[in-house]
Amino acid sequence: MVLQRIGDKWTPLVFQVLKDGPQRFSAIRAAVQGVTPKVLTQTLRTLERDGLVSRTIFAEVPPRVEYGLTPLGQTLLGPLDAVRAWAEEHAGKILQSRQDYDDQAEASTAVVSK
Amino acid sequence: MVLQRIGDKWTPLVFQVLKDGPQRFSAIRAAVQGVTPKVLTQTLRTLERDGLVSRTIFAEVPPRVEYGLTPLGQTLLGPLDAVRAWAEEHAGKILQSRQDYDDQAEASTAVVSK
Repeated sequence: MVLQRIGDKWTPLVFQVLKDGPQRFSAIRAAVQGVTPKVLTQTLRTLERDGLVSRTIFAEVPPRVEYGLTPLGQTLLGPLDAVRAWAEEHAGKILQSRQDYDDQAEASTAVVSK
Repeated sequence: MVLQRIGDKWTPLVFQVLKDGPQRFSAIRAAVQGVTPKVLTQTLRTLERDGLVSRTIFAEVPPRVEYGLTPLGQTLLGPLDAVRAWAEEHAGKILQSRQDYDDQAEASTAVVSK
């Protein structure tokens, strides 16, 4: 499911880091809070396999590796921005709704157990 | 993570069914291919908790229950459409990229094992 790629927790954050240009693994990791090296490696490999991210190895000593958005990856920036803007605008209402829902569920459990 | 809601496999499909108006559980289930009653129940409950879907019980015999998008849920239709349009347009390239990636990985494994 291609759509699931977008809801993957780390993909939008990796895109946010790469949208201004290629970066090294360590720079991506520093910018994406909370991601472990193992999960970031897996996320980058998945995005590379999808053709959304490129991996370039520079023949230096030691070799340098950079990750960047491919032209296909660049096309995803627009929809991702729309989703992130929506989430930022509405996160407060959603969190409040969750709180109200949980309070109500708790209240009705309390009534039942009386 | 509010963003993950959008990447959840079933949320975009449920939204697609509800965007034209409230529906009963059985109608949603019939329209969303492959979803089990248990998963659909959980998805609808999660969306209700987020304030994106409303659940209305009609005092009939037997009681009728309908699910519909709330005003907050309606605001998510735009970003979801952007993401779905992107996925439909680019799914072919992504699937091809995955095939190429896997073929290449297989070829390099074959060379190593010679």
